[in-house]
Amino acid sequence: MVTMAPPARIGPSILNSNLANLASECQRMVECGADYLHLDVMDGHFVPNLTFGHPVVQSIRDNLGDKPFFDAHMMVSKPEQWVKPMADAKVNLFTFHLESTQQPQDLIKQIHESGMKAGCGIKPGTPVSLLIELLHSQMCDMALVMTVEPGFGGQKFMTDMMSKVKSLRSEFPGLDIEVDGGVSPATIQHCAEAGANMIVSGSAIMRSSDPKGVIEELRSVVEEYGVRR
Amino acid sequence: MVTMAPPARIGPSILNSNLANLASECQRMVECGADYLHLDVMDGHFVPNLTFGHPVVQSIRDNLGDKPFFDAHMMVSKPEQWVKPMADAKVNLFTFHLESTQQPQDLIKQIHESGMKAGCGIKPGTPVSLLIELLHSQMCDMALVMTVEPGFGGQKFMTDMMSKVKSLRSEFPGLDIEVDGGVSPATIQHCAEAGANMIVSGSAIMRSSDPKGVIEELRSVVEEYGVRR
Repeated sequence: MVTMAPPARIGPSILNSNLANLASECQRMVECGADYLHLDVMDGHFVPNLTFGHPVVQSIRDNLGDKPFFDAHMMVSKPEQWVKPMADAKVNLFTFHLESTQQPQDLIKQIHESGMKAGCGIKPGTPVSLLIELLHSQMCDMALVMTVEPGFGGQKFMTDMMSKVKSLRSEFPGLDIEVDGGVSPATIQHCAEAGANMIVSGSAIMRSSDPKGVIEELRSVVEEYGVRR
Repeated sequence: MVTMAPPARIGPSILNSNLANLASECQRMVECGADYLHLDVMDGHFVPNLTFGHPVVQSIRDNLGDKPFFDAHMMVSKPEQWVKPMADAKVNLFTFHLESTQQPQDLIKQIHESGMKAGCGIKPGTPVSLLIELLHSQMCDMALVMTVEPGFGGQKFMTDMMSKVKSLRSEFPGLDIEVDGGVSPATIQHCAEAGANMIVSGSAIMRSSDPKGVIEELRSVVEEYGVRR
């Protein structure tokens, strides 16, 4: 059996956008060809920044309609608390951090029961072996490898995280693997080569004069490596 | 010496507005005659809701300019952490909860040193005597009496909180006293009679077909009682 490489998908992060105009910023990204929207939820406890929560996500959904795919990146210390409100806001993918919970298996089940896909992420300091171990005991739909310390946009890409992506891709050829942090046309080749297929990019897209072009460039590099594998 | 009654001021709460269009929602409130904007910051720890933090407040400021008066109501468990970011976003009044800190005197000093006014609020379950005691040891610029359990908009006004407002007004004739929660044209008379002069109102203003009229009505009732006192 041949496992198909999962498709390349580009998810702009709106963290560095105009947060007082999220409806139009998100709509603009959809029109520029974003495959999904990566929504950075931070509670000021799991990370030292406080962005927005489910009431804002619900308002974005109300403004954009049901079609856009929302990936809610839950940088919060009690992810269990927000499963139902995020499902109510029609979030498609609920991505929690392995470091934020003692019961990741139960949380994945809870997310699935609420009708969402489940993603699990690790910070730069967390060994990938812990995530691989979890996925062997309770599979989820996406694995996220942080390529900066989570909390703020505009940070420098950590190339040494690519070994984590390679380990995950080698272990799970069909899994969606996401990278987040400092990803731009200058660093996408590392991500694609290592095997990532879901690409979060913030400043490089949001602050470009040609966001559509940046999205297309990121996607084409990932597709090129996906075909080679 | 005659202490002047502090002026009536109406601050719409944007909690129940379109949170994906905060710039236009806030601008609309300014144009409707709001004296200030009451910004409900919640971290999901001090209260069971997660709204938005300083990056969103900064974006609202960037969109509205320096003129509108921002009251940041910090329903968070570590208010000290956000003094500098809120000052950077040109928040005018930083309102923390007495229940959220062990060092309220130090926090008030920290807020003042950062160039903002300081407000201190109490939840329905907290005795007003604790707030009065604080104000005698370290004066701040505003006292907030919550008239619902903080966390969500659209709740029923708690009339029995008015005794707290009366105690504060009797002790501090010139102090700004704010009420927040369930305040509408139907309940404003209680607030005004007890001595509140800063009026937060969410759903009653935001969801009215005539927000300007509601703001004027609330202000005129408060002014009427202010003159009588």
